[in-house]
Amino acid sequence: MRVAILGGTGDIGEGLALRWAYHTSHDIVIGSRDPQRARSKAEEYETELSSRGAETTIAAAANAEAAAGADVVVAAVPAYHLADTIEQVEEGLDGETVLVSPAVGMQRDESGMHYNRPGAGSVTALAADAAPDDVAVVGAFHNLAADELANLDIDLSLDAILVGDDEDAVDRVELLADGIDGIRALRAGSIDNAAEVESLTPLLINLAMHNDELHDVGVRFE
Amino acid sequence: MRVAILGGTGDIGEGLALRWAYHTSHDIVIGSRDPQRARSKAEEYETELSSRGAETTIAAAANAEAAAGADVVVAAVPAYHLADTIEQVEEGLDGETVLVSPAVGMQRDESGMHYNRPGAGSVTALAADAAPDDVAVVGAFHNLAADELANLDIDLSLDAILVGDDEDAVDRVELLADGIDGIRALRAGSIDNAAEVESLTPLLINLAMHNDELHDVGVRFE
Repeated sequence: MRVAILGGTGDIGEGLALRWAYHTSHDIVIGSRDPQRARSKAEEYETELSSRGAETTIAAAANAEAAAGADVVVAAVPAYHLADTIEQVEEGLDGETVLVSPAVGMQRDESGMHYNRPGAGSVTALAADAAPDDVAVVGAFHNLAADELANLDIDLSLDAILVGDDEDAVDRVELLADGIDGIRALRAGSIDNAAEVESLTPLLINLAMHNDELHDVGVRFE
Repeated sequence: MRVAILGGTGDIGEGLALRWAYHTSHDIVIGSRDPQRARSKAEEYETELSSRGAETTIAAAANAEAAAGADVVVAAVPAYHLADTIEQVEEGLDGETVLVSPAVGMQRDESGMHYNRPGAGSVTALAADAAPDDVAVVGAFHNLAADELANLDIDLSLDAILVGDDEDAVDRVELLADGIDGIRALRAGSIDNAAEVESLTPLLINLAMHNDELHDVGVRFE
């Protein structure tokens, strides 16, 4: 599968790129607004992988070029850039593309981190609204522990929760998620259920703040 | 410690009563609107415990009587009965009482279960608003797997997330939570952070609906 990670220079994008390149045979392309930055991060990831004996090529391009022709496009950008990013790349998306939204809108106050629910109902719903009608959107990878994900020394034991209205699209993302050793994909229904998934991210941050043993925390449902 | 479980005849109340009676030496009193019903459930719990060699007395009373003199009062009632229940018992609460709120407001639609955020900001905040000013309120036990909790054959491996504005009160509830084998108490800060904790409950229900292996699901943060 060809997987484009827009915002693949950020922390969750980095972790997904490294893990997919390391654990699977998918073709990974890093997208960024700045293609030079995408290229330099892709080389950094290649060096990291090579140091572990994985001689893998990671492509790099500007976001629009990265997205064109990808089977899955992961919009690993902050929630406030999501609609703009989708608009930049939409010419390259079609009925064959699955767009994945891992972004969460959050707001910090003196108590901690809070879910900032968008008017669309969730950030995933916002992505679905911004995407062309024939592009299936799946919410996923909101709640992974980013530092653990990007550290290939760590054996993961994390759940990735998926929401989406198109079962085939969710199946494709499930395959991608399950392809990473130590990640288990779980389904939480349609995009209407995304807010409860996204709300988990600020909770994880609050738990990390208040519990010494949970610096970079993910979740397992059992 | 003397622990009153108001609504101790419901499923989460049953699980907490059985586990505290089985794993700790706290005095448990079951409260209900109907003291006869409280008595008959308390006897049921005693029989269950006795069948496992634990000869324990579980007290029973009408809610107000159960709450009076308790160190911790757990309001294990549905969110829409919470304010009324607190009003019924408030004469028995004072600056020495910790009131625990495990309730979550939810709404089901065709997609699944959704968090129904009260005007107060969270159900825990609603409990704090309803309680007398000198009574410390702690949100806890929202996200336990109720059937697992009530089945003493099952070794638990669950996290209980606590939120509260009074550190001593949170300490007391942490002691109660950690007293149950297999439960780990985690702190998530003040009551302002309760909505993200309560939102996890509908997510657990949606995950149980969509994943065969997760019928009665709880959560571990790691």
